[in-house]
Amino acid sequence: MTGPSKRDATGTQACNVALVGFGTVGSSVAKILCERSNAHLRLTHILNRNVARKKVDWLPSSVQWTENIDDVLSSNADIVVEVMGGLQPTEDWIRRALQSGKSVVTANKQLIAHCGPELISLARQMNQQIEFGASVAGGVPVISGLHEGLAGDELFKIRGILNGTCNYILSQIETNGIPFATALREAQKLGFAEADPTEDIEGLDARAKLAILARVGLHCHVRPESIMARSISAIDSIDFEYANQLHCTIRQISWAEFNAQSKTELKAALKEESKGDTLFAAVQPALVELSSPLARVEGSQNLVVATGRYGGETVFGGHGAGGNPTAVAVVSDILAIARSKQSAITITMKDAGQPIEKTPTVTADFTAKHYLRFLVKDRPGIIASFATILSQCGINIDSVLQKPGCPKSHLPFLITLEECKASLVEQALQQINSLDFLVQPCLHLPIL
Amino acid sequence: MTGPSKRDATGTQACNVALVGFGTVGSSVAKILCERSNAHLRLTHILNRNVARKKVDWLPSSVQWTENIDDVLSSNADIVVEVMGGLQPTEDWIRRALQSGKSVVTANKQLIAHCGPELISLARQMNQQIEFGASVAGGVPVISGLHEGLAGDELFKIRGILNGTCNYILSQIETNGIPFATALREAQKLGFAEADPTEDIEGLDARAKLAILARVGLHCHVRPESIMARSISAIDSIDFEYANQLHCTIRQISWAEFNAQSKTELKAALKEESKGDTLFAAVQPALVELSSPLARVEGSQNLVVATGRYGGETVFGGHGAGGNPTAVAVVSDILAIARSKQSAITITMKDAGQPIEKTPTVTADFTAKHYLRFLVKDRPGIIASFATILSQCGINIDSVLQKPGCPKSHLPFLITLEECKASLVEQALQQINSLDFLVQPCLHLPIL
Repeated sequence: MTGPSKRDATGTQACNVALVGFGTVGSSVAKILCERSNAHLRLTHILNRNVARKKVDWLPSSVQWTENIDDVLSSNADIVVEVMGGLQPTEDWIRRALQSGKSVVTANKQLIAHCGPELISLARQMNQQIEFGASVAGGVPVISGLHEGLAGDELFKIRGILNGTCNYILSQIETNGIPFATALREAQKLGFAEADPTEDIEGLDARAKLAILARVGLHCHVRPESIMARSISAIDSIDFEYANQLHCTIRQISWAEFNAQSKTELKAALKEESKGDTLFAAVQPALVELSSPLARVEGSQNLVVATGRYGGETVFGGHGAGGNPTAVAVVSDILAIARSKQSAITITMKDAGQPIEKTPTVTADFTAKHYLRFLVKDRPGIIASFATILSQCGINIDSVLQKPGCPKSHLPFLITLEECKASLVEQALQQINSLDFLVQPCLHLPIL
Repeated sequence: MTGPSKRDATGTQACNVALVGFGTVGSSVAKILCERSNAHLRLTHILNRNVARKKVDWLPSSVQWTENIDDVLSSNADIVVEVMGGLQPTEDWIRRALQSGKSVVTANKQLIAHCGPELISLARQMNQQIEFGASVAGGVPVISGLHEGLAGDELFKIRGILNGTCNYILSQIETNGIPFATALREAQKLGFAEADPTEDIEGLDARAKLAILARVGLHCHVRPESIMARSISAIDSIDFEYANQLHCTIRQISWAEFNAQSKTELKAALKEESKGDTLFAAVQPALVELSSPLARVEGSQNLVVATGRYGGETVFGGHGAGGNPTAVAVVSDILAIARSKQSAITITMKDAGQPIEKTPTVTADFTAKHYLRFLVKDRPGIIASFATILSQCGINIDSVLQKPGCPKSHLPFLITLEECKASLVEQALQQINSLDFLVQPCLHLPIL
């Protein structure tokens, strides 16, 4: 059944929407489309495996259920909404939808992080749109915020808490003083973490989102693989005790910044030109000051802080996951495309006037203060050994903290370092980690 | 010099921009337009009084300076940017600009709050756009966030700190324990408050912004005059001491909500329909819990929390004032219009699919807990008098607090009330305020 969309009673062209995927997000999207009873949007198709099992009775009988993508591609749907996830066959289906003259809304961060530019270019070629507001931070409208709301600024830094699972686990370790493994197990029980939590814990989920934010906000192509990602699994409750003594907490921070030099260097750089050809980017657990908005993100919430040359810091926060919040972002994108379609917008020109995209060198070698937490078998001369190696590497110690009353065989203690490059610290740690009194390798976190 | 805009080398139609007003915001806008050297945007005119005095040497010589609006209206400018302020002749000029087939960007909150709908309707009629992102919260992209980013949700509550001057003054009273008058004087010295601070202190500035947010986010027409505004001038440092004992602080809160019933009533109402015909709206000093994002807004920052039926709470925060942040919002609007112009967008259809606007009854009669702070000449029986009146009005006392060591002739003390309607409290206060042992009328703040 093909053909143009019909006009409704007011003469406005109605927009037909096909939903590909009917899981948590998909059914929330369907619910919002029905409940809001927007005359201009019409849900026409739902595709899912095992339709017989998935079919619900609260949707209009006019909705066509199918397991075959060709039914969607040959239909009169104007917008294909992909909330199925995965890289394949999703990418293939989205390409075919665009080629069939349909616009696309997707919540698929991995897909957009990996082949967003190609898909956007294909969409333009076909005079269609592809929107992906739900791919980062769920219901928090940060993609449109960076792309439109802050278009007038020249952003040079984006920091964020982009993974609710990690934030939940870290909050639990902090609040309840439990080990990482316990916190993870409890998060899994409560549905805050997946059975296989690798993508979240190791930072792979967040770095895909960071790659998307870097493209939208900093106008640069970054492959997610080029962004360093470090696990939060080494964080222990003792680290929160130490962090608190430094008026900090620990969060999984996604960070992308042009010219991430020391503050003095940065100020000098800003006077000339705020963007270089090197992008500092990483996803890692880090110490953040308790007064920072990043420190106050609770549970599974998300937060993004964008910093611009003219507007300073702008904060976007809210529910980064969950069916309904993510569906809000999807429906907002559907509405944006519907408005464009009704306006006969010429998509090829959409980005005219946007800054030219860069393809910078990506490095995680931030200049920062550093937190080194050791677990040692106590004996005389340990601090001297560390201090000697650090000083040989040209690194200045800022403070040494040792919690009283710990067992001599597993003695945790802390060294903080003055501002220096992360690579310098890693060099020193290669030597330090081979020292025989270390019970485990040193935990190294930047202090932001 | 009239005529169509020229196309640049890439074939993209350049957009000519005329700037009306060259004060703090205007010169920041000009600076950003020059520094970003966007080939598609061309600053062609600047209008200001006393051009000879205003003229700067850092703008291209091609920019025409004028004191006569007719030079702008008859020019080839595509977009007129109004950053001059005031209701007249601004409104007249904006109407004439739209009628001359020019789109308009304005930062003028009072104008948009008072005649936004008429101007938007005129713009549509002329197939032009009027954008006003800078009219609320300066550089914080909350207008586009509510209008586009959260378009997929059904918002029913907006709370915000929309006036940086009040937030700065209240922060200073809190931090330094100084009286209101001193804090105001210091804010004036530092340029955070105007010589005549009435608009800010009395909440008139914030209620214009709240009326705009209610229109954009809650889709309802609200005249600013219909929103109750109460001064922050009665707040004393003793109130922060009491507030802290209640784990709260005091902020000037702008609040608009459909169905602002008690939580139980609200839950019931939400099950049926989240929007009624009554809008609860007010700008007033209020107690907010220290754990709320509203409590953590420092200095002259702005913050908006939008609550939706599907997405829950979403937060937008940043610099609410200042030349550069406000200019970012203006330039973002210019870019949005430029994109539309390049896309031959049909503005008349822009809002198709938007919820229908309502014209609700506006009331400030929130159901909330309440804070009553008295200053009395001490004598036996005072609490009994208050308690009798409150109980006759059907109001339950939650707690009574009295700071020790205060002079008997000016004894401050506090009564907090259980959840009840504000109007009930005001009734009781009419009786209470006539009691002869009161040194000054009771300070009544809601506890949010």
